[in-house]
Amino acid sequence: MPLNAYTEAERAAIYRVIYERRDMRHFLSDAIDPELLTRLLQAAHHAPSVGFMQPWRFIRITQPELRIAIHALVEQERIATANALNEREDEFMKLKVEGILECGEVLIAALCDKREHYIFGRRTLPEMDIASLSCAIQNMWLAARAEGIGLGWVSMFEPEALKTLLNMPQDSQPLGVLCLGHVKQFYDKPMLEQQHWAERQDLSNHRI
Amino acid sequence: MPLNAYTEAERAAIYRVIYERRDMRHFLSDAIDPELLTRLLQAAHHAPSVGFMQPWRFIRITQPELRIAIHALVEQERIATANALNEREDEFMKLKVEGILECGEVLIAALCDKREHYIFGRRTLPEMDIASLSCAIQNMWLAARAEGIGLGWVSMFEPEALKTLLNMPQDSQPLGVLCLGHVKQFYDKPMLEQQHWAERQDLSNHRI
Repeated sequence: MPLNAYTEAERAAIYRVIYERRDMRHFLSDAIDPELLTRLLQAAHHAPSVGFMQPWRFIRITQPELRIAIHALVEQERIATANALNEREDEFMKLKVEGILECGEVLIAALCDKREHYIFGRRTLPEMDIASLSCAIQNMWLAARAEGIGLGWVSMFEPEALKTLLNMPQDSQPLGVLCLGHVKQFYDKPMLEQQHWAERQDLSNHRI
Repeated sequence: MPLNAYTEAERAAIYRVIYERRDMRHFLSDAIDPELLTRLLQAAHHAPSVGFMQPWRFIRITQPELRIAIHALVEQERIATANALNEREDEFMKLKVEGILECGEVLIAALCDKREHYIFGRRTLPEMDIASLSCAIQNMWLAARAEGIGLGWVSMFEPEALKTLLNMPQDSQPLGVLCLGHVKQFYDKPMLEQQHWAERQDLSNHRI
């Protein structure tokens, strides 16, 4: 047993949440307790970041008309994606994005502006800012699952259109529309696996 | 209390690991138990991925001469970064990358080849593959902390040079040299904070 290992019960809880986290698309409309939401944001804020740049920003959408406008942007991109995928369109169109209108909270996960002077760890890999934001979202996702809150990461939108809608700085970059909310139940398997969109690959096949 | 919430003890374990995870740079050289390493890879493999594409690959470096060559690539980029940062060079040069030679395991975290036909969720945001790989690394990182294993994510290298060294497909992309190993102790705070490189920002200042 390594030094500094957690107890068996703690390790079990951590593996449990890693295995039970799901990308949720179906929500109850109940509000999320503000203290719970703050705990989720704090979890995100304790992610690793390249050169400790902490590039993550979460924009809380509170105006119903803005949420409707975001939903319209996602719907537009859903149709564009379905056209691009033509042969799988029928299957694809079943994957709903209605969660944006139903869920308790919508957050926009974005990279902040003025990132170009952060060079440490990014000189040859500028995309490490995306990596840091993604780790923050994953922290939030795991914490949310443990709290019984579902999270869905929607990446079907035109980023420039979303920036314009939200009046975001030109050099910022939205990476996700995050839907958070209470759920009746979590999916047993990833929804795309349940829908036979794709299967989980074998770990042993995972070779370059 | 939301439906489906975990117990208080489980939630505490999950927040504990989120807060105690550290980007480690100092390692003991003891080997990592192979079953433990498999658990960490399985944790990574249960990350979310855009369109369930599972783009992550982890290349285990087992040849000592390859590890030395990777260290040399990182050292080269460390110097290039220090030059680019000139005014902070002295501070910066203290941040060691020797962990690559000391740690029990080195894994290269990479995006697989043949990604261009994965369109779902990526038509307007192709960088979502980087997001998925990053979530996988974050899962591994949290599981490792719970197991008492340190992980350091090194992004100081020229990706094309690393691809050539490892004979990786042209359309694959390495995103990190991951150092994993036993550690004497985990840092109390992020190393870059201890070194006064940067401070943790206030959550309330985090506004676009």
